[in-house]
Amino acid sequence: MMQLQVLLVAGTHGNEINGIWLFDEWEKSSFLINTHGIKTCKIIGNPEAKKAGTRYIHNDLNRSFKEESYLTNSLSNFEGTRANELVKLYGASGKNPCQIVLDFHTTTAAMGSCLVVYGRRNADLALASLIQNKLGLPIYLHESDQRETGFLVESWPCGLVIEIGPIGQGLLNSEIILQTKLILESVMEQIHQVKNLNLFFPDKLIVHRHIKSIDFPRDEEGNIDGYVHPLRQSKDWQPLKKNDELFCKLNGELIRFEEDEPYIPVFINEAAYVEKNISMSFTKKELWDFRKQWRQSLIDLVRQK
Amino acid sequence: MMQLQVLLVAGTHGNEINGIWLFDEWEKSSFLINTHGIKTCKIIGNPEAKKAGTRYIHNDLNRSFKEESYLTNSLSNFEGTRANELVKLYGASGKNPCQIVLDFHTTTAAMGSCLVVYGRRNADLALASLIQNKLGLPIYLHESDQRETGFLVESWPCGLVIEIGPIGQGLLNSEIILQTKLILESVMEQIHQVKNLNLFFPDKLIVHRHIKSIDFPRDEEGNIDGYVHPLRQSKDWQPLKKNDELFCKLNGELIRFEEDEPYIPVFINEAAYVEKNISMSFTKKELWDFRKQWRQSLIDLVRQK
Repeated sequence: MMQLQVLLVAGTHGNEINGIWLFDEWEKSSFLINTHGIKTCKIIGNPEAKKAGTRYIHNDLNRSFKEESYLTNSLSNFEGTRANELVKLYGASGKNPCQIVLDFHTTTAAMGSCLVVYGRRNADLALASLIQNKLGLPIYLHESDQRETGFLVESWPCGLVIEIGPIGQGLLNSEIILQTKLILESVMEQIHQVKNLNLFFPDKLIVHRHIKSIDFPRDEEGNIDGYVHPLRQSKDWQPLKKNDELFCKLNGELIRFEEDEPYIPVFINEAAYVEKNISMSFTKKELWDFRKQWRQSLIDLVRQK
Repeated sequence: MMQLQVLLVAGTHGNEINGIWLFDEWEKSSFLINTHGIKTCKIIGNPEAKKAGTRYIHNDLNRSFKEESYLTNSLSNFEGTRANELVKLYGASGKNPCQIVLDFHTTTAAMGSCLVVYGRRNADLALASLIQNKLGLPIYLHESDQRETGFLVESWPCGLVIEIGPIGQGLLNSEIILQTKLILESVMEQIHQVKNLNLFFPDKLIVHRHIKSIDFPRDEEGNIDGYVHPLRQSKDWQPLKKNDELFCKLNGELIRFEEDEPYIPVFINEAAYVEKNISMSFTKKELWDFRKQWRQSLIDLVRQK
């Protein structure tokens, strides 16, 4: 039986550096984090961007895990090459195979700590349930957004993104580092429990399902001509009611929320999403029944059946 | 007599965009800001960096107002060329002469609103006194730092920097825009009062005089190996006592404040200063007597004697 190994990635975006700091601390003091005997590989996702102090060099690494990225000329696509390399080195069939990946991010939005799950893979949902049950973190389910694809965790059999904010790009903050440590240790503890079949899954999972992302208001030439309304700023996870203020426009107009559903906004004014034409994303809060196949899928993966 | 004209600059750093937004609003609605009949020129300091969403293209524009910058090859020094151009266009002896400049900045540090004065020019100190008397803003006197020179305002006979934070780079925030508007209007009102000799100068000026900037802790290879202690984060303007915590180091050590003077830290964890090897700056709070020659210097400038 091959031994379970968990890949830990920090600095997938080169200016999100708190996870990298935690890894460095851990390197100096090997008892800092209790992995409950589970083997881990710690890597910096995008070391070149880290050096440059930027999110990425050519392309967003966390959108580069797809065939076409790997094949593009490496001189003009550092991140495509890096994505390919990471899968070859640490993928489930890689040189140093890892079955589960945790990808540590930070955000300038007031998101607190949350888990991001891509699609509805059984093992992801099982692991996210365990963490939600333990720490109460919200789960943002990102799916069916054709504009945004090629996420790192999707290239592993099971993987979660951990998002923590608000923190400015390129800055270290002790609270963010501590939050990162707490979640990392909780995930390792839960995986350990799964390994020993000493596990307690909740009956229900609370999911904030991605519905759509919305752009900033723009003028005829495509320039941004509205900003997030003060009543929305830093109000991530707070449900919208019809006619709530969304944006203030240059001409003094207010843009209001006009949907009938009480969507819940997340990633409000995330600095890195301006270039993606995203001012915030709308989610729908759902209560899902826990499914047996999620559990089994995670157990099979962790126990390498 | 030549007419007084005030130059208003926003976006000297391309990712500090709240001032630019205010100018755009003002463009749409000419009554938005009362300039009390004083002529103004509104410009974007670094439009190329604004387009790129970065602080600058080749060099920090707000360190480029010096002879050697102007002379460097323009292909590799966009900002040197731009600095030269701005002085030629809007300098006191320029095509469209302006005698006073206001340079609007934002910071990721929790500085609130403040004025930055470079050196001890009489007219600057007079104008800063009027604004402090009106709005109570702290004045950060930046001087005798040989590492940091070539500031925009120094190329005009009188000029103040307005710094407002905390706000992430590249983000718009209604509160920051409102603060910018308030200070802009107050300065215009005070200049108007000077013009009409209807002016009231305070007896005293509170100055936070720059003493020095300190770097982050670094390891032997020069890599940052310490972050700002949680007790210091966002505590700009709060005096330090001997043995106060400054940084947490990677090896678990604390670095403490060991000076005897109760220095007051500013620009704590400003994201743009990491590349300048500045984690924070120390200032000394001083109470200065208002000097007659400051008053006369500002009056002469405003009334164009």
